[in-house]
Amino acid sequence: MKTIYELGLDKNAANHVPLSPMTFLARAAAVHPERVAIVEGSRSQTWRETDQRCRRLASALRARGIGRGDTVAALMPNVSAMVEAHFGVPMSGAVLNALNTRLDAATVAFMLAHGEADVLLVDRELAPVAMAAVDRLEREILVIDVEAEGFDAPAGAALTYEALLAEGDPTFVYEGPEDEWDAICLNYTSGTTGDPKGVVYHHRGAFMNAVSNALEWDMPKHPVYLWTLPLFHCNGWCFAWTVAARAGVNICLRKIDPAAIFAAIRDHRVTHYCGAPIVHSMLIDAAPEHGQGIDHAVQAMVAGAAPPAAMIEAMEGLGFDLTHVYGLTETYGPAAVCEKHEDWTELPVEDRARLNAKQGVRYHLQEAITVLDPATMEPVPADGETVGEVMFRGNITMKGYLKNPSATQAAFAGGWFHTGDLGVLGPDGYVKIKDRSKDIIISGGENISSLEVEDVLHRHPAVSAVAVVAQPDDKWGETPCAFIELRPGAEATPEALTAFCKERLAGFKVPRNFVFGALPRTSTGKVQKYELRDRVGSASAIDE
Amino acid sequence: MKTIYELGLDKNAANHVPLSPMTFLARAAAVHPERVAIVEGSRSQTWRETDQRCRRLASALRARGIGRGDTVAALMPNVSAMVEAHFGVPMSGAVLNALNTRLDAATVAFMLAHGEADVLLVDRELAPVAMAAVDRLEREILVIDVEAEGFDAPAGAALTYEALLAEGDPTFVYEGPEDEWDAICLNYTSGTTGDPKGVVYHHRGAFMNAVSNALEWDMPKHPVYLWTLPLFHCNGWCFAWTVAARAGVNICLRKIDPAAIFAAIRDHRVTHYCGAPIVHSMLIDAAPEHGQGIDHAVQAMVAGAAPPAAMIEAMEGLGFDLTHVYGLTETYGPAAVCEKHEDWTELPVEDRARLNAKQGVRYHLQEAITVLDPATMEPVPADGETVGEVMFRGNITMKGYLKNPSATQAAFAGGWFHTGDLGVLGPDGYVKIKDRSKDIIISGGENISSLEVEDVLHRHPAVSAVAVVAQPDDKWGETPCAFIELRPGAEATPEALTAFCKERLAGFKVPRNFVFGALPRTSTGKVQKYELRDRVGSASAIDE
Repeated sequence: MKTIYELGLDKNAANHVPLSPMTFLARAAAVHPERVAIVEGSRSQTWRETDQRCRRLASALRARGIGRGDTVAALMPNVSAMVEAHFGVPMSGAVLNALNTRLDAATVAFMLAHGEADVLLVDRELAPVAMAAVDRLEREILVIDVEAEGFDAPAGAALTYEALLAEGDPTFVYEGPEDEWDAICLNYTSGTTGDPKGVVYHHRGAFMNAVSNALEWDMPKHPVYLWTLPLFHCNGWCFAWTVAARAGVNICLRKIDPAAIFAAIRDHRVTHYCGAPIVHSMLIDAAPEHGQGIDHAVQAMVAGAAPPAAMIEAMEGLGFDLTHVYGLTETYGPAAVCEKHEDWTELPVEDRARLNAKQGVRYHLQEAITVLDPATMEPVPADGETVGEVMFRGNITMKGYLKNPSATQAAFAGGWFHTGDLGVLGPDGYVKIKDRSKDIIISGGENISSLEVEDVLHRHPAVSAVAVVAQPDDKWGETPCAFIELRPGAEATPEALTAFCKERLAGFKVPRNFVFGALPRTSTGKVQKYELRDRVGSASAIDE
Repeated sequence: MKTIYELGLDKNAANHVPLSPMTFLARAAAVHPERVAIVEGSRSQTWRETDQRCRRLASALRARGIGRGDTVAALMPNVSAMVEAHFGVPMSGAVLNALNTRLDAATVAFMLAHGEADVLLVDRELAPVAMAAVDRLEREILVIDVEAEGFDAPAGAALTYEALLAEGDPTFVYEGPEDEWDAICLNYTSGTTGDPKGVVYHHRGAFMNAVSNALEWDMPKHPVYLWTLPLFHCNGWCFAWTVAARAGVNICLRKIDPAAIFAAIRDHRVTHYCGAPIVHSMLIDAAPEHGQGIDHAVQAMVAGAAPPAAMIEAMEGLGFDLTHVYGLTETYGPAAVCEKHEDWTELPVEDRARLNAKQGVRYHLQEAITVLDPATMEPVPADGETVGEVMFRGNITMKGYLKNPSATQAAFAGGWFHTGDLGVLGPDGYVKIKDRSKDIIISGGENISSLEVEDVLHRHPAVSAVAVVAQPDDKWGETPCAFIELRPGAEATPEALTAFCKERLAGFKVPRNFVFGALPRTSTGKVQKYELRDRVGSASAIDE
């Protein structure tokens, strides 16, 4: 039986509008039309201009038959057209498929085929890979040439981005998604073996994460946001939409270069940026040469690995405050934050680093993160010791994997999203990752967490980056092998590092082998452990 | 035909959770369990305790048969139990009907009957009115006696609030709303004639407005929020949920008393509070005596009328920054804000007051506010002159009026919520109210905006508050009559005020009559113009 609250009280156009981050652009353009929205080199454009250009893009795509449920791919560095694509494409009703700029042609071709893209927006710098990928496709695709200074036009592009915009209408009225569950973006996970999976985002989740970003960071109106995080990576963790919601400034950067980053921070008084640990490390190393003259507070987010004490300390020295966040492509990038407590501020940096190393708690607008026994789906005790699988639940979680119902069902089994990360739940309710299942090294029947060994080596002053993997061993089954990147000018011997580890780790956890040199990384700065496992002939390399 | 993005990508428990502000309490209790949540006099309780007490309330209500679609009424000042009711009642599935504490027994009885309340939570101070209302009901209602120091227990209450909580389970697991469209609150509008209308709020809108409040104010984590705005008034504009979302502190105040307000601001370092203009005026007047020793910044929101220049200036002198917001009960309280621009800060206070007087632009998470011709539903030109009706659209808009489909349909006609306020749209897109239809005075065939005349009189240094209404006139039809409240110790004559107006207004707009004395006000501080119209025998008094 219906209650009195369900009679004559239905949704209508006045009291129910599907959630979509497109609304943030409309508001920024209406309320702050003359404020700068995007800066790229010496060029800048206002929110009014940005709104008009996005409407042009949307209407031009519509005129070419693109609409709801179609896919528009984009292969671009962090340029202004890439920011615009995050609005113009969804405004047309289509789904934006931002592609990793460091992929090879075969992988790009796989994604274009699997995602059924009808259009590909390509920055000229990336045209060689893009056109090679297009050549492999067995069907037509409309290639849009996004001009870039110093690069040639690709053969095979239908028209330039500016010509496409010229076809469009700057006053185009878009209707927004029919349903907030409609897809807004498609992001392929950078799986290291097997076909990449296409993670589908909905408008509702993009709206939620964009707002949550502002809440996690206490981000006030009109931030100046520097694009160090690739826009193709979980849609720049949704920050294009957050910056619009706050009517801030997008500072675009074609290349991740410490001198350019410091110059941008200084010249534009950047207030916020995000990045993998490698980005922050690069800045720390370049600070003596390039970091002078920055006298304002900067908020930095770090994801992908916990920031070690030395990093936190060095960042503080620069006046940068680090926030540690955690998530996956499937959760629109980070959807958990190591939320700081006031009483942490008085602690020594080592203690703060230990506390900050936790993956933490759910984003404000995510419903839950926890650690469950994946077999029983029961929560582990909140003892900081019992290992289970880290899981998410809530509105900042993907629709599922495109054309892959079995993977989707497995990911959502039991009503939670399974991250594949192993972790514990502290008495404070904060989640801490102990390891990914495949990062556990089993030596003489004992489990060794490669993260634990890496954490110790990170503390050595000569070590810039480290990755520990399992190396096959006739006697022990596996032993830890440490790959080490040294700080510029620093030196360390295997003997010294062994001694350093022995003071801090149980003997069986100390690496038996140290290898020095640059670590192989994904385009997002994540160390490619599978490659290191390959090098040492590890068995676990094969199932990644 | 379904697109590829609609196949095998359905909602499930992992990726879709109904929006509800209950989640903010859960997060505050999980992440900041030891932080203070509520202070009332010398007593305070943490977020963990608050969460447990709310779970107790919810489960005790459940055990007594209260659940989804039932109504729980509450008649309480701004005490901690009232904050708890904003969580505990919806957690049980029931709808919270917060009642205006200054109503008479007959009106309370009407609301209890119309809203079909099964339970009534009554603060002892308000028990006489409540029990008289209960006596008029022709059915049983469970009366819960909320104890208050210095007041006697009412005869007829079933049990105390603490006894009810003792029946409950502090670990009760609530399932949240089945649907985010479910009702969360019922608020009767204080109509001045005719039966009050029951405005029904949904969980989705309460969630949206709670978050929007934080965004409008750039409210950081852990604010200290002072309850000067009644919690019964649009659920304290949803700030109980906002404070939970930000894990802040609720400072409860039983009475609106300037000395107590200043003491709370000073002692608890209050960062935020809201109120009608009368609250801010009271503070300004009491500042010399009570406002000493406050050395931190305070954010104040004002709704109900634009703050005049003198008020803005006086508040700045106290270190208080005023934000002007606008809305109605139907839009969860304010859903528009006069968002300030950076370049306003350099202007003289008169200019800032003029700019700040606008009702402004939509809240971040409301979809639209605009001015339409109600006949054609076409937007008026954005010329700052053409008058139309102010209308809202979006997710911060009520479900409708309870058991009143015709009023609901009229309010939502054409897909917009009709506010009944007349306004203009400026070239900057900011809405400015010119008048409510009934506030237009028609003199010799010319329209006079009573607001315009009031604005002028507000600028006179002796005037504390003013209300201008139409007085019947044999010659002109109507003429403006001004009711004036003078500042303490200030003096003014009708002649002086007439001269003051003549310098600033067209002759026909100058009031022909000045009446000095206290203005009649509603419980929320709104001037009761209908009573003033009654006094002068105005025709428009009858149709209010």
